[in-house]
Amino acid sequence: METIGVALGSRSYPIHIGTDLLGNAQLYRPYLGGGSAAIVTNQVVAPLYLDKVSQALKQTGARVTHVIVADGEQTKSWQVLESVFDALLAARCGRDTLLVALGGGVVGDLAGFAAAVYQRGIPFLQVPTTLLAQVDSAVGGKTAINHARGKNMIGAFHQPLGVVSDVATLDTLPDRELRCGLAEVIKHGFALDLAFVDWLEGHIEKLLNRDRGALTYAVRRCCELKAGIVAADEREAGVRALLNFGHTFGHAIEAAAGYGAWLHGEAIGAGMVMAAELSCGLGLIGKAEVERVRGLIKRAGLPTSGPALAPVRLMELMAGDKKAAEGKLRFVVLEALGRAALRGGVDEERIREAIVAAAQ
Amino acid sequence: METIGVALGSRSYPIHIGTDLLGNAQLYRPYLGGGSAAIVTNQVVAPLYLDKVSQALKQTGARVTHVIVADGEQTKSWQVLESVFDALLAARCGRDTLLVALGGGVVGDLAGFAAAVYQRGIPFLQVPTTLLAQVDSAVGGKTAINHARGKNMIGAFHQPLGVVSDVATLDTLPDRELRCGLAEVIKHGFALDLAFVDWLEGHIEKLLNRDRGALTYAVRRCCELKAGIVAADEREAGVRALLNFGHTFGHAIEAAAGYGAWLHGEAIGAGMVMAAELSCGLGLIGKAEVERVRGLIKRAGLPTSGPALAPVRLMELMAGDKKAAEGKLRFVVLEALGRAALRGGVDEERIREAIVAAAQ
Repeated sequence: METIGVALGSRSYPIHIGTDLLGNAQLYRPYLGGGSAAIVTNQVVAPLYLDKVSQALKQTGARVTHVIVADGEQTKSWQVLESVFDALLAARCGRDTLLVALGGGVVGDLAGFAAAVYQRGIPFLQVPTTLLAQVDSAVGGKTAINHARGKNMIGAFHQPLGVVSDVATLDTLPDRELRCGLAEVIKHGFALDLAFVDWLEGHIEKLLNRDRGALTYAVRRCCELKAGIVAADEREAGVRALLNFGHTFGHAIEAAAGYGAWLHGEAIGAGMVMAAELSCGLGLIGKAEVERVRGLIKRAGLPTSGPALAPVRLMELMAGDKKAAEGKLRFVVLEALGRAALRGGVDEERIREAIVAAAQ
Repeated sequence: METIGVALGSRSYPIHIGTDLLGNAQLYRPYLGGGSAAIVTNQVVAPLYLDKVSQALKQTGARVTHVIVADGEQTKSWQVLESVFDALLAARCGRDTLLVALGGGVVGDLAGFAAAVYQRGIPFLQVPTTLLAQVDSAVGGKTAINHARGKNMIGAFHQPLGVVSDVATLDTLPDRELRCGLAEVIKHGFALDLAFVDWLEGHIEKLLNRDRGALTYAVRRCCELKAGIVAADEREAGVRALLNFGHTFGHAIEAAAGYGAWLHGEAIGAGMVMAAELSCGLGLIGKAEVERVRGLIKRAGLPTSGPALAPVRLMELMAGDKKAAEGKLRFVVLEALGRAALRGGVDEERIREAIVAAAQ
């Protein structure tokens, strides 16, 4: 097991990465100060891992309850959130109950937000079981649910007490979700670390074949990169926004297609190509760099262009995205591969051209 | 105008107390960094003060929108919260929009919680127009909505950028709400400051007659006391719980009667007498001290006993209160007048006796 730290003063926490961690009672013990835990998981993950985690928590002497929600992005809703609160209240969970998010990004976002606002905030532990969650969404304290007008519109920054990433859980991950996780892995490379891009270009097939050594390295490197960013800018006042590379376009694709039709990682795949094309259109990088972005995303089995829609529709949706400050769109662009930057006041015509270019 | 500071490091903020502050554009200007504001108010306050505040905000050059919600405790619901989000999104409010809570405790709690979670948190300003909000709920960053199983069950700690308390707004406050505000004023005295109890016993009629000098002093003194407590314990890990004197009983009364039947301050009035009787039953204070508590609450025109219910019903409701840690009830008791303390593991029979004694 490897452990990486996220340095946030009194809110600092460890990320444990390894195999066979889910059933390890000793690993959970330090987090169970209050003697009770509530596991939030979904209908797909529950049959696979709920018993293992529940038993390990009980071995520490804790009182354990659980809530099982539906699978899919639609779960990040008011209705499901309220059903989580109902369950926590019915089980008399108090302010010292540890909420355990067992699942992928949807469960982590939903359960994390529930922990952020239940009785004005209770402790929680992220136990991500998808690659996307292990490399990205389980780290950094962003939690949220969706709104009809946009993704993650209602949420909170609420750091977990810890993250337990068991890469053995990736054995059961559907291929499509594995590829979605790779989208966020690739994002860390292009946005922050050219050496990691080089490594990914040499290991993408191993990752697709679920080579545990390669997966462990990818999870660790992404967590290291993300931990550094989050420590510098917890609440996304500046540099943390660089982690949204591909996301302004990607969120619009998700919204246009209807949540769930495109998975998040798929939309981010196409969104990164659009953002790279935009960077090229702005004269920041050349065609060769755009092709490196497109090529790695394609090799990961991800879409490199958006749904068949007029570009103007995506642009309307982006204008409503929460990253729009005062109505002006800001984009994460690439100044070079591995070096993202924020760019405001981008001409609408450049954006349209980037969407069209990604589809060529 | 007097200004008191709440010392919370990077989240420190001023409380402005005075008359004719609502229409003062200069006072709002420092809070409008993003150039846009959204006022949340209710149907009673809007006809009185919305135009004045809106005009003053517009004088700073800000783009201003507003949302008007229904009056009353029932407004602290999921449905109303979602309608606020809908309005903010429809008006394309972004992360730098200043949310202005114009109204009493309900508006402040609801709008504050909306600000806490809209796009993972936006800045907000408290502009309390009731005595209860000016002396208590607008200060300290507690925000929440209710759940069928208990009051303030879903919420966040989210500090405002500032508080603008215009005591001239108390001119239009119904008598019943003035008395409810006095319940929280009296709470500050009995929990924290015997000298303030002495002052209140000498000035309760002036306060009931809305003497501006007396009201200004009461607001200022409560804010000073509360600011000190909040600075020491922002997230209620310890000493801040003392501000809940009378509230464990009070919340149960509100829940038993159905939210809105008893106003919060009325329930806290009766709750303080029960808490004082409990303190007496535990041998901490004498009968004479209990009578001083009861006497001041009675002079303020507040109830000194709960609704006609079996004590066991209130006790059941208290067991579900969020202050119950691991199922064990903790009470704020008085070790002396002006010196509250937390007491756990209280015998159920003592609690029952206190409820009965308050009704004698």
